[in-house]
Amino acid sequence: MKIFYRLGLLFFMVIMAGILFLRRLRSLFLFSVLFLLALLPKRTYAQQALVKYVKPIIGTQKMGHTYPGATVPFGAVQLSPDTDTLSYEMNGKYNGDVYKYCAGYKYEDKTIVGFSHTHFSGTGHSDLGDFLVMPTQGRLKLNPGTADNPGSGFRSGFSHANEHIEAGYYRVKLDDHQIMAELTATERVGLHRYTFPKSEDSHVVLDLMSGIYNYEDKNVWTFVRVVNDTLVTGYRQTNGWARTRTVYFAMSFSKPFKGYGQKNFDKTQVYKGFWRKFDQTRNFPDIAGKRIRMYFDFTTTDEEQVVIKFALSPVSQENALENMRSEAPGWDFDRIKAKAQAKWNTELNKIVIDASEDDKINFYTAMYHAFINPTNYTDVNTEYKGLDQNVHKANGFTNYTTFSLWDTYRALHPFLNIMQPSRNNDIVKSMLAHYDQSTLKMLPIWSHYANDNWCMSGYHSVSVIADAVVKGVYNGNAARALEACVTTANRRSYEGIGDYIDKGYIPAENNRTSVSNTLEYAYDDWCIAQMAKKLGREDVYSTFIKRAANWRNVFDARIGFMRPRLADGSFKKDFDALSTHDQGFIEGNTWNYSFFVPHDPKAMIEVMGGAKRVAARLDSLFTMHLPDEFFAETEDITREGIIGGYVHGNEPAHHVAYLYNWVGQPWKTQERVRMILKMQYKPTPDGLGGNDDCGQMSAWYMFSSLGFYPVSPGSDEYALGSPAVNTAVLNLENGKKLTIEAVNQSDKHIYVAKVLLNGRLLKGHTIRHADIIDGGVLRFVMTDKIR
Amino acid sequence: MKIFYRLGLLFFMVIMAGILFLRRLRSLFLFSVLFLLALLPKRTYAQQALVKYVKPIIGTQKMGHTYPGATVPFGAVQLSPDTDTLSYEMNGKYNGDVYKYCAGYKYEDKTIVGFSHTHFSGTGHSDLGDFLVMPTQGRLKLNPGTADNPGSGFRSGFSHANEHIEAGYYRVKLDDHQIMAELTATERVGLHRYTFPKSEDSHVVLDLMSGIYNYEDKNVWTFVRVVNDTLVTGYRQTNGWARTRTVYFAMSFSKPFKGYGQKNFDKTQVYKGFWRKFDQTRNFPDIAGKRIRMYFDFTTTDEEQVVIKFALSPVSQENALENMRSEAPGWDFDRIKAKAQAKWNTELNKIVIDASEDDKINFYTAMYHAFINPTNYTDVNTEYKGLDQNVHKANGFTNYTTFSLWDTYRALHPFLNIMQPSRNNDIVKSMLAHYDQSTLKMLPIWSHYANDNWCMSGYHSVSVIADAVVKGVYNGNAARALEACVTTANRRSYEGIGDYIDKGYIPAENNRTSVSNTLEYAYDDWCIAQMAKKLGREDVYSTFIKRAANWRNVFDARIGFMRPRLADGSFKKDFDALSTHDQGFIEGNTWNYSFFVPHDPKAMIEVMGGAKRVAARLDSLFTMHLPDEFFAETEDITREGIIGGYVHGNEPAHHVAYLYNWVGQPWKTQERVRMILKMQYKPTPDGLGGNDDCGQMSAWYMFSSLGFYPVSPGSDEYALGSPAVNTAVLNLENGKKLTIEAVNQSDKHIYVAKVLLNGRLLKGHTIRHADIIDGGVLRFVMTDKIR
Repeated sequence: MKIFYRLGLLFFMVIMAGILFLRRLRSLFLFSVLFLLALLPKRTYAQQALVKYVKPIIGTQKMGHTYPGATVPFGAVQLSPDTDTLSYEMNGKYNGDVYKYCAGYKYEDKTIVGFSHTHFSGTGHSDLGDFLVMPTQGRLKLNPGTADNPGSGFRSGFSHANEHIEAGYYRVKLDDHQIMAELTATERVGLHRYTFPKSEDSHVVLDLMSGIYNYEDKNVWTFVRVVNDTLVTGYRQTNGWARTRTVYFAMSFSKPFKGYGQKNFDKTQVYKGFWRKFDQTRNFPDIAGKRIRMYFDFTTTDEEQVVIKFALSPVSQENALENMRSEAPGWDFDRIKAKAQAKWNTELNKIVIDASEDDKINFYTAMYHAFINPTNYTDVNTEYKGLDQNVHKANGFTNYTTFSLWDTYRALHPFLNIMQPSRNNDIVKSMLAHYDQSTLKMLPIWSHYANDNWCMSGYHSVSVIADAVVKGVYNGNAARALEACVTTANRRSYEGIGDYIDKGYIPAENNRTSVSNTLEYAYDDWCIAQMAKKLGREDVYSTFIKRAANWRNVFDARIGFMRPRLADGSFKKDFDALSTHDQGFIEGNTWNYSFFVPHDPKAMIEVMGGAKRVAARLDSLFTMHLPDEFFAETEDITREGIIGGYVHGNEPAHHVAYLYNWVGQPWKTQERVRMILKMQYKPTPDGLGGNDDCGQMSAWYMFSSLGFYPVSPGSDEYALGSPAVNTAVLNLENGKKLTIEAVNQSDKHIYVAKVLLNGRLLKGHTIRHADIIDGGVLRFVMTDKIR
Repeated sequence: MKIFYRLGLLFFMVIMAGILFLRRLRSLFLFSVLFLLALLPKRTYAQQALVKYVKPIIGTQKMGHTYPGATVPFGAVQLSPDTDTLSYEMNGKYNGDVYKYCAGYKYEDKTIVGFSHTHFSGTGHSDLGDFLVMPTQGRLKLNPGTADNPGSGFRSGFSHANEHIEAGYYRVKLDDHQIMAELTATERVGLHRYTFPKSEDSHVVLDLMSGIYNYEDKNVWTFVRVVNDTLVTGYRQTNGWARTRTVYFAMSFSKPFKGYGQKNFDKTQVYKGFWRKFDQTRNFPDIAGKRIRMYFDFTTTDEEQVVIKFALSPVSQENALENMRSEAPGWDFDRIKAKAQAKWNTELNKIVIDASEDDKINFYTAMYHAFINPTNYTDVNTEYKGLDQNVHKANGFTNYTTFSLWDTYRALHPFLNIMQPSRNNDIVKSMLAHYDQSTLKMLPIWSHYANDNWCMSGYHSVSVIADAVVKGVYNGNAARALEACVTTANRRSYEGIGDYIDKGYIPAENNRTSVSNTLEYAYDDWCIAQMAKKLGREDVYSTFIKRAANWRNVFDARIGFMRPRLADGSFKKDFDALSTHDQGFIEGNTWNYSFFVPHDPKAMIEVMGGAKRVAARLDSLFTMHLPDEFFAETEDITREGIIGGYVHGNEPAHHVAYLYNWVGQPWKTQERVRMILKMQYKPTPDGLGGNDDCGQMSAWYMFSSLGFYPVSPGSDEYALGSPAVNTAVLNLENGKKLTIEAVNQSDKHIYVAKVLLNGRLLKGHTIRHADIIDGGVLRFVMTDKIR
């Protein structure tokens, strides 16, 4: 709408409003005022309808480990169908199949057990799956039944044909119950709308035993109060990947249930006898135990809809209720759905691209997946549970959890530093709060729900913090942040750090992943040094810049690879460069890990024998054949997740394609990046070749599609690649815009002839952070010829 | 000190102080000011040193179930030695021996396992025993060892010769470790002072698995933070008699420990592998699990004292810390001990008696035991955990827990209404808060630590509330209190109430204790009627006064006894009047329970065939022989706990001795009461013939010693008996005094010739509440002759 037209209309309406008011046509007056308000410009850029490009089903098949259910950006609730709820253990041993259900949903499955409220997106280990709700009809069943015979329990068959999935909305027909189930969410509230058939025997099952990566004793305690015939509150504590995790809930029904009950599956209930004064199985409102399933009964008319609001809180039942009242008053499911999708649309509009339809789907779905984690872990009243298990108030920030840092420090957090700087600022503050609450005085490693499971190697919080400090995103006390990083890096009792400090590497006999750890610590130490430099802390800088060179100590110049080293200084014998397990690495063999010196590729290339040899080595990596026996050791990915010996489905080599820039063959970076974009990301359920890992794979996709990538977070430089979009407009938080143009870009025109920033030719193969957030035009001139 | 002398001295000191101040002898000036302050009269009555008469050891042998450790009046902490910590289960079955350890300590035992912070006083079922602390020396042992071979674990032999016990103070020498252990307490903090020998190898064990009535899965979760080398905080949740109970703690050491560690005894620790990044057994500060024992290491010099402050909270670690800082700053154990004893002395001085030394010991120890429960369940910042598991603030009252109401409604709460009306007012408010938080909308039955275990029969909260309302003690909204009572009494799903309302009695086929329940409900309903009458609620009165007559429905006129009745109206066949089990009764056979119409003895006597027959029946009760087979069914008492067939060790007949007043033989009331006082209460470890039951037995003692007893709480009348003191001065909260004189009282002069209230002859055998709290002189003229 042109501005003059808008102004003219405004003037006309003001006159009209005045007349209407004087004539006491109040309702018409009110209407016209509302109409006027609607005309006021709301945003500085017009929003496109981008939600349609989000296909949450991408990555739900094979190894993506994404979930299809409803969530809002960075929301605390992830309400999604679980197609099975296997036990972590079978006959006392680890049950390998449980791994497939990291996100609760497996595209290949034919049945749905129910809809639970918390899910990780793309992880390779798991937890959560809290509060599984399932609507049923007919004879009440309080066991889930089996996938082969869904009728044996409350689960139901379904087909993808009857499934409709959008960002913030999920719908499926439950065939066995003839019930249509719809899901949407606010930040802290999951909404269910169930359309029942006519039945005297309709039920809603609330399974308080169910969980992801479940096992016999995982449920520590459950407490439920049936407050009245539409409101239930309670909590559940589990002991899983999060050693201790308590989620409080408030569950509200749009229609009063006519009765309810529970079954307690606890093995021993010593004091059960004392409680026989009541029939506790039916209409008994004060429920507690370790393994409980509840149900609520309804009589439903044909196509009657029952809406359930299910709010979560990390702190208390009251907070869950307050969250519900604040975010989801009333019963208008469609309004909440529209709001959820509006939130997604606002986020997605931060980057408006021109590209093929498939690339748009890939891009916006990647953006969707990148904007799921970390998740909000603060109640509306600002309270949250800290690592010390105390209740804290988040003063001046939103507290986040779910830090899959070994993955996400690489590209997700740098991406947030560009597109969501305020949020990443809060994320850094959340990490520092975690540190303050830590008796160990450590920043998070792999942290979720007021715990640390210390999964994977490195202490990569320091990378996220350094990147935010160096790029000016963190607005808190940077000296305190530095201190937290230094203290974490000096926690001698953690994972070989003592040895690492003393010897400059971790002896292989003391640590199964001694080389990955040494390499990653060295990079993290470089991050600390960068932060120290910026803060003028020369003392800290000099200590950590020395530690940053420790990667040299595990490099075996004789074979030209990183290699496990023993305490006596000798390198491990019986070393196989193709193997990962027990070779000192995790999720990547030395072919991948030997390139892990992101902070000093120049020195790495030097020790590896110079640019030519390294270029050849990179070629080999992308073209070699990884025999099956070694592929099997590469966790979390499908065969499609590797290209030659390059493992894109895991993270350690995510920067490697960009290293060609450093050996004088940038066209190979451009080739490889385009190849990876094509081969590793598809707009299909099996479109992800490996775990999305809380958005890291997706962030890689977006960076690379836009033509640049943060090879070494903690530096303010990005390596240039080959943009796969035609144009992209980045609507930055500071109000500026960066327009990326890839002139002549096509599947064949993948090579970059030249790059112009605001008309000025860029030399070299990097672009600085300031250049991006200052906005303007970044023009890649593309060609089909190698330069 | 005479007042003139005091004034003269005051004058002299003021002059002296002026001179000292002018001469700048500041320190001497300060001293004289302090001296002056000490001279100021502090209370309206001079306190006697009565603590010396308290012998906490009374009742620790056999069936008393009292504990000898340190507590302050109504304190949240009960820090006491545990001489064994048996499991509730042995080979999957109930372990009968555990019953002996209801209070953790058994006088007969030769070893002490440690000192834990929470204990019930005198109960017949149990729980608690939280946070067992044990100082040791020599090689570290992390199992308790056995009583036969204490050296096999951390427990230690001890002897009563080396034990010194006072109100608020406990000391024992731990022979195996050559450590002197001393205990004292504030309301919310337990203090330990351990005097170690010289050793490089001194330890303090913190056993977080141990508990009273423990069993394999009782520990639900434990969390501990070692904040620094003198401070540890955490919590433990258990699933026992209290279905769910979480106690938070803060533990502070006067001397830094040189190291610490833990052992986790959990059967399965699925994710243990993930935590191998640390050695979690030693100096690892972030501890959690289900079954944990910790230890702290010290090097001690000879006779070095280490003081431990151990604060509790029902709400949070921070609250525990705040409780500690507020109540026990600094490290002066002796000062805290003196304060604890001063608190006891203040309470004990509320009644100053003249009696024999033994009687003083019995009396003041009874008072001590009566002033332990209910216990404070509010943090210093007024927060507490409610029945709904939410955190509440106690606005304008102190929240109490540990309501052994089936016992304590009889005499303990009526006693508090006279001597602790403010506190009983708060207790009623606590019960109403419990009701407000109850999803069942029920007042407490047997409630502790934000739970109800619904133990025993009746809904006797209503008796406590009615008594407080009728006597003007409750100052809150009485209409709301009445509503809570009515709602509780109409909870049809509870223990036969539905049947009771419909039929006027509980059919025996539906309820194992159908007669006790019917009788007790009828009495409770009468209490509700009294309250309704006082509040002018004629509608409620008429409903409940009808229900109050329901005792008639289980009276079998043919045999003259209360008797189980079936749904069809017929009485149960195969009925044995001597038996208790499966006869419709609990803790008393029909010989005892048939007299349970405390609210209408007149009508009861009438249906039983008149005064003469009832008098004879009472005689039989006190003189009959109860064969062993039936004695065995009388729970919780020793053979000494019965007199004939009268079971004083249990509660149902506590009012029975006073019933002679109603059948025209008051001298027999006087005889029986004196006999019971003599036979059932002795100043020895085995001095209590049955469980003290949270002070009920003790309250009976005090009432009866003073010459009156509340036969029917909820009425404002007390039945007169035979005072066993020479004189007693009741220092009432309203500032008035009641002086009781028992002229010529002796072991032979047990009969009451006449009773004069303020010189006016009392007719009948009752005295009204108003007469007591208005103060004055209540003179019993005693004789050795039956009137």
